[in-house]
Amino acid sequence: MHMLLHHASWPEVEAYLERSKGVLIPIGSTEQHGPNGLIGTDAICPEVIARKAAEDTQMLIAPTFNVGIAQHHMGFAGSMTLRPSTMIAAIYDWVASLSRHGFDRIYFFNGHGGNIATIQAAFSEIYADRSLGREGDNRRAVKCRLVNWWDFKPVLDYCKQTYGSAHGSHATPSEVAVTYAAFPHAVKHAVMEPAIAPSGRFTDAEDYRAKFPDGRIGSDPSLARAEDGEKLIALSAKSLAEDFKNFTTS
Amino acid sequence: MHMLLHHASWPEVEAYLERSKGVLIPIGSTEQHGPNGLIGTDAICPEVIARKAAEDTQMLIAPTFNVGIAQHHMGFAGSMTLRPSTMIAAIYDWVASLSRHGFDRIYFFNGHGGNIATIQAAFSEIYADRSLGREGDNRRAVKCRLVNWWDFKPVLDYCKQTYGSAHGSHATPSEVAVTYAAFPHAVKHAVMEPAIAPSGRFTDAEDYRAKFPDGRIGSDPSLARAEDGEKLIALSAKSLAEDFKNFTTS
Amino acid sequence: MHMLLHHASWPEVEAYLERSKGVLIPIGSTEQHGPNGLIGTDAICPEVIARKAAEDTQMLIAPTFNVGIAQHHMGFAGSMTLRPSTMIAAIYDWVASLSRHGFDRIYFFNGHGGNIATIQAAFSEIYADRSLGREGDNRRAVKCRLVNWWDFKPVLDYCKQTYGSAHGSHATPSEVAVTYAAFPHAVKHAVMEPAIAPSGRFTDAEDYRAKFPDGRIGSDPSLARAEDGEKLIALSAKSLAEDFKNFTTS
Amino acid sequence: MHMLLHHASWPEVEAYLERSKGVLIPIGSTEQHGPNGLIGTDAICPEVIARKAAEDTQMLIAPTFNVGIAQHHMGFAGSMTLRPSTMIAAIYDWVASLSRHGFDRIYFFNGHGGNIATIQAAFSEIYADRSLGREGDNRRAVKCRLVNWWDFKPVLDYCKQTYGSAHGSHATPSEVAVTYAAFPHAVKHAVMEPAIAPSGRFTDAEDYRAKFPDGRIGSDPSLARAEDGEKLIALSAKSLAEDFKNFTTS
Amino acid sequence: MHMLLHHASWPEVEAYLERSKGVLIPIGSTEQHGPNGLIGTDAICPEVIARKAAEDTQMLIAPTFNVGIAQHHMGFAGSMTLRPSTMIAAIYDWVASLSRHGFDRIYFFNGHGGNIATIQAAFSEIYADRSLGREGDNRRAVKCRLVNWWDFKPVLDYCKQTYGSAHGSHATPSEVAVTYAAFPHAVKHAVMEPAIAPSGRFTDAEDYRAKFPDGRIGSDPSLARAEDGEKLIALSAKSLAEDFKNFTTS
Amino acid sequence: MHMLLHHASWPEVEAYLERSKGVLIPIGSTEQHGPNGLIGTDAICPEVIARKAAEDTQMLIAPTFNVGIAQHHMGFAGSMTLRPSTMIAAIYDWVASLSRHGFDRIYFFNGHGGNIATIQAAFSEIYADRSLGREGDNRRAVKCRLVNWWDFKPVLDYCKQTYGSAHGSHATPSEVAVTYAAFPHAVKHAVMEPAIAPSGRFTDAEDYRAKFPDGRIGSDPSLARAEDGEKLIALSAKSLAEDFKNFTTS
Repeated sequence: MHMLLHHASWPEVEAYLERSKGVLIPIGSTEQHGPNGLIGTDAICPEVIARKAAEDTQMLIAPTFNVGIAQHHMGFAGSMTLRPSTMIAAIYDWVASLSRHGFDRIYFFNGHGGNIATIQAAFSEIYADRSLGREGDNRRAVKCRLVNWWDFKPVLDYCKQTYGSAHGSHATPSEVAVTYAAFPHAVKHAVMEPAIAPSGRFTDAEDYRAKFPDGRIGSDPSLARAEDGEKLIALSAKSLAEDFKNFTTS
Repeated sequence: MHMLLHHASWPEVEAYLERSKGVLIPIGSTEQHGPNGLIGTDAICPEVIARKAAEDTQMLIAPTFNVGIAQHHMGFAGSMTLRPSTMIAAIYDWVASLSRHGFDRIYFFNGHGGNIATIQAAFSEIYADRSLGREGDNRRAVKCRLVNWWDFKPVLDYCKQTYGSAHGSHATPSEVAVTYAAFPHAVKHAVMEPAIAPSGRFTDAEDYRAKFPDGRIGSDPSLARAEDGEKLIALSAKSLAEDFKNFTTS
Repeated sequence: MHMLLHHASWPEVEAYLERSKGVLIPIGSTEQHGPNGLIGTDAICPEVIARKAAEDTQMLIAPTFNVGIAQHHMGFAGSMTLRPSTMIAAIYDWVASLSRHGFDRIYFFNGHGGNIATIQAAFSEIYADRSLGREGDNRRAVKCRLVNWWDFKPVLDYCKQTYGSAHGSHATPSEVAVTYAAFPHAVKHAVMEPAIAPSGRFTDAEDYRAKFPDGRIGSDPSLARAEDGEKLIALSAKSLAEDFKNFTTS
Repeated sequence: MHMLLHHASWPEVEAYLERSKGVLIPIGSTEQHGPNGLIGTDAICPEVIARKAAEDTQMLIAPTFNVGIAQHHMGFAGSMTLRPSTMIAAIYDWVASLSRHGFDRIYFFNGHGGNIATIQAAFSEIYADRSLGREGDNRRAVKCRLVNWWDFKPVLDYCKQTYGSAHGSHATPSEVAVTYAAFPHAVKHAVMEPAIAPSGRFTDAEDYRAKFPDGRIGSDPSLARAEDGEKLIALSAKSLAEDFKNFTTS
Repeated sequence: MHMLLHHASWPEVEAYLERSKGVLIPIGSTEQHGPNGLIGTDAICPEVIARKAAEDTQMLIAPTFNVGIAQHHMGFAGSMTLRPSTMIAAIYDWVASLSRHGFDRIYFFNGHGGNIATIQAAFSEIYADRSLGREGDNRRAVKCRLVNWWDFKPVLDYCKQTYGSAHGSHATPSEVAVTYAAFPHAVKHAVMEPAIAPSGRFTDAEDYRAKFPDGRIGSDPSLARAEDGEKLIALSAKSLAEDFKNFTTS
Repeated sequence: MHMLLHHASWPEVEAYLERSKGVLIPIGSTEQHGPNGLIGTDAICPEVIARKAAEDTQMLIAPTFNVGIAQHHMGFAGSMTLRPSTMIAAIYDWVASLSRHGFDRIYFFNGHGGNIATIQAAFSEIYADRSLGREGDNRRAVKCRLVNWWDFKPVLDYCKQTYGSAHGSHATPSEVAVTYAAFPHAVKHAVMEPAIAPSGRFTDAEDYRAKFPDGRIGSDPSLARAEDGEKLIALSAKSLAEDFKNFTTS
């Protein structure tokens, strides 16, 4: 049953908890995605895919954690970032809240590679409470899981075959395509120069902008098509539904 | 021009900044709203009203800050809360990010009374950096403003005249009506017992639940109608458009 | 019985706890109060009024929390401020200490409007510990209450009738009068120009000083008279005694 | 010239700053002091002595930092403590505030041995900002100094000769005598059993109470006399005046 | 030139800085490594390999960061952990210290997979300072790099070919072999049951111990031989020397 | 029995815990020690002495806490510092980890005077958890002890008699001698000008460097001889063994 936490009442959540202790948190970022990509791309993708997945599965979807770790994008207007220490504190509170109600399978469905390290660090921060012997508090053990929407093999395969070496690693045609499928009115056009953006490592915002002047890394997002986005949504949603079920019943 | 930060590209934000340094952040909460109210009510209201306001005004809308201070609601399934110290850190980072790009009028459009104190504390935390003489850093002075969607006189008048003494202060028919107008499929029905919920002060979650067993305070949200929600949205949006314009051009 | 915590011995406090679980904390600020106002005004007022109230009531008075949120006053020599995050941590520790001994009614009697938001945020920080299910720790539930010394109707009425539109909101004649009543040797004289100071909003210290060059907001504190201060002390103390009694026996 | 910051106006502080950049902060604790000692002893002593010293010297006295590190006293009713991390943050803010106005000689006049380590740690926290190369901020270099009221040789000599082996290290007759001199109405009487309390090390509150059942360490505070307190105040104040002058003009 | 920071004098470091701005920090963990593995394995490996690498290369080696993220190992005696938030603060300070002297290439040579996320989060915390526009402070831009000692292809190949499917992921024969090569007196013998430990995911310490009762994951560390450790040290050191040189001269 | 935690396996630590609940943490600093002193001096001394002491005594030695409070040395290349707030958090985690396993006598053996205040503050932070009534958590009471390697009377006597007025307080010949005994290859030679360095107080790094241009305070470390270092190690180790035994069996 499709169920957004934000559209549910508390008695409905109470009823859901009788059937499942699992909840999904879409987690993204607010950051530039090149000349034709949406700043909300990394939040939109997991949100849209999760809703699709929830159509046929029992899955409660929490609100989207929508600002993440994007310090390296701060050279581009509109990007927003948390410091990792802030993000850890916030994830800690989100999980503490949900576990208070009995949720013990917290599934973070992520849209931003730059979030991965900090989310994992947050998990360790949460687990450390129990591991250091503070079992005196009544919070029960929770299991957290982090999955990126592109992690599933069918998605990876589709990207490779559709975009090949033009996929890159930031402002990729696949993620842009997903947002175009979700928000057709927001489709943008831009000439990419060069067609495929440069690749490489980066440190802070200044360094990033110097190396990737239009924001893309290794990608040609002018290849993004809404119809491919639809397929990516469907592929990722199908895998997600299965993975979420496995996780919450394990 | 209607403009969601999440649907914009960075060059579009750059262009917007040539015309305006103002940005609006809808800020809400994820918390129970009684037997027939949505858990996302406090996030949905400012978000929906801001989008309405942005139809005719130049207004950039940031993503919604969607989990706030709801410790007192934790006795009801689905409620989520930040600790105030976490929320201050997060707001600090959001504002630091936006000011980095040149935004210097940050308008927090709020949907939850319980957030007010902490948002104001966050503003002081932000201002204190400059006030304590740390002008060495390059961040410019920002002005933050906090307005609740129900603060405008036309909204207050409408509520008083429509709901009278059944309006109450939590899970009010007005806020529920706004969410029903926004999401008709999420309309819920519940018998309220008593018709008007009790009122009073509260401290922590246990205390709250003991005093307000179904979550409402002083209200009868069974009076919520989508058509009234439409009117409330229109009234609040009109005032907001004007207030935002005044703020960003002052 | 008049009882200052600082003048009591621990056996005396132990005996007091047999009779009452309530304690009052005067909470103020150290900040400029215009050309003829004392920098300690906001700490002195609640302290003096509380001592008066305690003459006929059972009331234990803790030491004064004497530096608060005054970042906006930092443009004037002698002002001191905490960052809100620091103040929350400190209030948290004060309450944790008192609740350790069995105090469960903590009454914050406040002298500074700028403190209100942060004190309320601190209360939420304290309550959140329990609300998030950390009942494992042995600290009992506490109830905190925040009242400003001018909140009582008789005080408000007296101010309105005595000062009318010259009362203003910072460096008011009423608060200055209270300090003059308490410390006659500290009475100061200054010509106010203009007679009534400007009013308006403000952000950081630079902004504040630009708008309110001598520190006052909307007031004419040259109207302050020690004899009016005496009356204000008496009025506020009478209401406080009653309110404190109600709170601690509820 | 005697000058309490709390009794001054901002123009008076501005004028003071023309003559001196030095300010004194009495710093104490709120903690049990045995059967006949005042809970506020450690705050009262430095406050009273500083005011005495300020009678003949140019010395601005800030409000008293009145809750310190007293975790080990929490087994006795009325004791209050900060965690050291909180105290460091608070001292950091106090010094940042004062240095903002141009004070660059901050003299902490201390009444509690248990505060010493944390105050020194706070100094390092403050200095570290500059030492780590954050000179970009406009805050100037400050020098902080920590002196206990009993550190001066004449005071030490007087204690040794007056109390000998009954002086001890907590709830000493000397500190109790100072409070009796300051607040004659608060003099208390109690039979000490044994006459001289046991001595030794301690860790947390439970350990402390087990070893020192009435709160004293190594002392017989029944020897406290107000007239000796007067002498101690005079002796310490004289040394303080000189030391403060040396510090602020160095 | 082989150079340990701990064995150098400050004039020697000053001279080194004329030639290079690069410094290496061995970073490990203090945690159980199965029945025959050393608790210090993850600190010892990068330390030993770095010293080997430094024999022929210009490389300054900082002290070892020796307690990391090991909350999941807390079910086994002797394991120690930082919370991630603490580790981020500590790494922040280490890098701030080194960059103060002009080091701008900070190479973290890591021995513990569980550290990776938190180290990367720490890098983002450091970069965020600059990216959020705090360039006012004088700290220069630094580049941080994280490499695990087993990341180099020759090492991976050697492990695969020597241990095959008995390598596993915790308490691996390769890391145990390195410590045996370094500290022959510490070689231990234990019967492994089963020969190859189980594999799988884990959350907190209780969960970990339940799944991996003797501490190993997927490995048979009874295969560890000091002579293989020598080879692993040589292989990793060779690659490290090259990689460090590339990094510090880029 | 000599036992380094880093060289032990978890079953060995488990066995140790059957016999003793005591553990020793060498704690030092990474900071300049004048023209001929090692930057690692303050970490090396307690580490070397502890290992010596452990030869004949039952003593488990944890890894060395090797970066401490050295903000004042940051004007000299190679020095590293934590902020005190960071160090408190780290010590808190180290002790929480060890107490999790049943260690309840934690002996900090210190090599740096500048660490003392912050270590003591950390102890109070740890004890405060219990003292504020958080006994709900399962962590048991721990006793922490701080001893400097030079605190023992035989060591003090030896220093006085060997170096007299040339001992000083930073970069002393005694500590340099200990490092020379431990690492003969690291002996350095430098002409001291003046022979005995100046003495005095200091604040931040700039102030320190101005007053002590080559880093020494009051000492002539050219007197350091490896053979004296041997004696110092032996003297301190003997006292340590005894003191550790008393502490862990008390």
